[in-house]
Amino acid sequence: MLGESGVLDQLGTMSRARNLKVAERLDHVRPLLAEDLAAVEAALAIPEGERAIHLSAGHLLARGGKRLRPICVALASKLGSGFGPRALDLAVAAELVHNATLLHDDVVDLGASRRGAPTARVVYGNAISIFAGDWLLIDALRRVRRSSSADVLERLLDVIDEMIVAESRQLERRGQLSIAIEDWTSVAAGKTAALFRWAMYAGGRAGGCSEAQASALEQFGQHVGLAFQAIDDVLDLAGNASVTGKVLFADLCEGKASLSIVLALRARPELEHSLRAVAETGLDEEAGARLTKEIASTGALDEARRFADTEVAAAIALLDAFEAGPARAALVGIAHAMTAREL
Amino acid sequence: MLGESGVLDQLGTMSRARNLKVAERLDHVRPLLAEDLAAVEAALAIPEGERAIHLSAGHLLARGGKRLRPICVALASKLGSGFGPRALDLAVAAELVHNATLLHDDVVDLGASRRGAPTARVVYGNAISIFAGDWLLIDALRRVRRSSSADVLERLLDVIDEMIVAESRQLERRGQLSIAIEDWTSVAAGKTAALFRWAMYAGGRAGGCSEAQASALEQFGQHVGLAFQAIDDVLDLAGNASVTGKVLFADLCEGKASLSIVLALRARPELEHSLRAVAETGLDEEAGARLTKEIASTGALDEARRFADTEVAAAIALLDAFEAGPARAALVGIAHAMTAREL
Repeated sequence: MLGESGVLDQLGTMSRARNLKVAERLDHVRPLLAEDLAAVEAALAIPEGERAIHLSAGHLLARGGKRLRPICVALASKLGSGFGPRALDLAVAAELVHNATLLHDDVVDLGASRRGAPTARVVYGNAISIFAGDWLLIDALRRVRRSSSADVLERLLDVIDEMIVAESRQLERRGQLSIAIEDWTSVAAGKTAALFRWAMYAGGRAGGCSEAQASALEQFGQHVGLAFQAIDDVLDLAGNASVTGKVLFADLCEGKASLSIVLALRARPELEHSLRAVAETGLDEEAGARLTKEIASTGALDEARRFADTEVAAAIALLDAFEAGPARAALVGIAHAMTAREL
Repeated sequence: MLGESGVLDQLGTMSRARNLKVAERLDHVRPLLAEDLAAVEAALAIPEGERAIHLSAGHLLARGGKRLRPICVALASKLGSGFGPRALDLAVAAELVHNATLLHDDVVDLGASRRGAPTARVVYGNAISIFAGDWLLIDALRRVRRSSSADVLERLLDVIDEMIVAESRQLERRGQLSIAIEDWTSVAAGKTAALFRWAMYAGGRAGGCSEAQASALEQFGQHVGLAFQAIDDVLDLAGNASVTGKVLFADLCEGKASLSIVLALRARPELEHSLRAVAETGLDEEAGARLTKEIASTGALDEARRFADTEVAAAIALLDAFEAGPARAALVGIAHAMTAREL
């Protein structure tokens, strides 16, 4: 199990990798969140000796992950009155919903590894992973219902609906690599940004901020979520598998049109034939390196990173609605970490 | 799409098959529910031209089914002030939750046919069926949140949790045919009775009945649900496939210990060897008929039916807490129909 310091160390590492200022900003986050994230981890821990459904869910949860969504809830709450029991429930719920979708996605995509370990479906089976995902989703909703006003629950239900529809849209389009940027954005907004949006909104409401401020936080979540997905897509082609814990070209091999692929095909449509061949037959390490180079030469990877930078800038601008302080500084750091991240 | 009269015709047929008195009782249900069930069907209809996720969910919903859970909600509400918009939302939600679990169960069990047609997973794929199940679940919860008091939503979340844990427990025990009756009961209570319990409670609350009455209705749902599952288990061995739309011995071939199997093995433990062989290799029609005869000769099928009769009697006794009237008479009829049913 990754403790709170592990999560923050990861964030520090990913920031230092790109620029020191981000790392310095995240040093402010450390004392600010240590206690809160420890409480989140304690709530996420599933007692030993439980049933297969709990083992399967626990297998994924115990691998840690970045805990970015709980961090968003916690920091948003600290823009106001702070991280109390209500914000804790919401932070845990955000992470549970995220993990529920991962369990189902891994069954849908036949994913073999995640967070550097075999997926829950490989260890405990597809069937139990389906039920484990259902169970985490219900557990998240129970926490939100018990601790929040009706609008926070209503928005979470809306967001989960958006996530499912986006995932299913992506599934329908599987194999279509040449799609419009707007189609990429709409899927990324649903499957990734929606939950960041909710995490920021819910945290803000738990901290007692105004409707207008909660709306600014939602937009922050939307921009940061799109940046996150854009970089995720870059890492699928140009990431370091030993850092990300993911297989390179996984999206491409699953026929998913990642942002860099969409941009590369817009710049050089004749690439489609060789990309399609990869999607159908896979590729070895050497061929992979060649392909990444070819895609990079179209400028697609840089363009995807610039897209993420623009989203991050838009996110940060929204924080002007809040007084300067450690929580706001930390959110700026988190936003920068989105584009600087290597996992 | 099966209209409201179709549902009631089915109920009538299943009742007439066993005793005329039940059929007569259900004749009272017809004018009582026609309009309400038409509204339920309209709300369950998924607009054409939607996405794969909607097509997949719609494929199952449009096959009709018995709509017993909406009928329970409607009749419970009619014990009080009647079936208004709130009860409609709850009736639809009960059916959506039921169908969500069917979509996921068919993926888990690799089910090939349901309600006399290929399963949604066969037509649209496992992946879309997983998302479609998620979507129906969220849709159900949104309806309940919007139309009900917090305790009705809280109880639905608890019930879905129970359903998932019971399904996963059944999955863990797959292949164990010789289990204690209590273990069968606890799985049946979670996977089947829990939702009947909620349907009765929710309908009662929507009709404005008292806490004590709502609790009696919950118990009614529990008994009726156990009876329903007991007969389901009998039909797996001795049903008419052309009526049930299900393959005979499906439970047994999936290694599930149905009630008749549990009872047969208690009476004649030496049967385990041949039952296990069937679970592993399947069987043809002739061998199936022989096996059913052998199980019947242990008295297990009769005992399972007697168990259902006892549960139905206990359910009906609980209705003494309500004034006589068409809704109460109809609930008595529904309870009797549980054991008389052929599908």
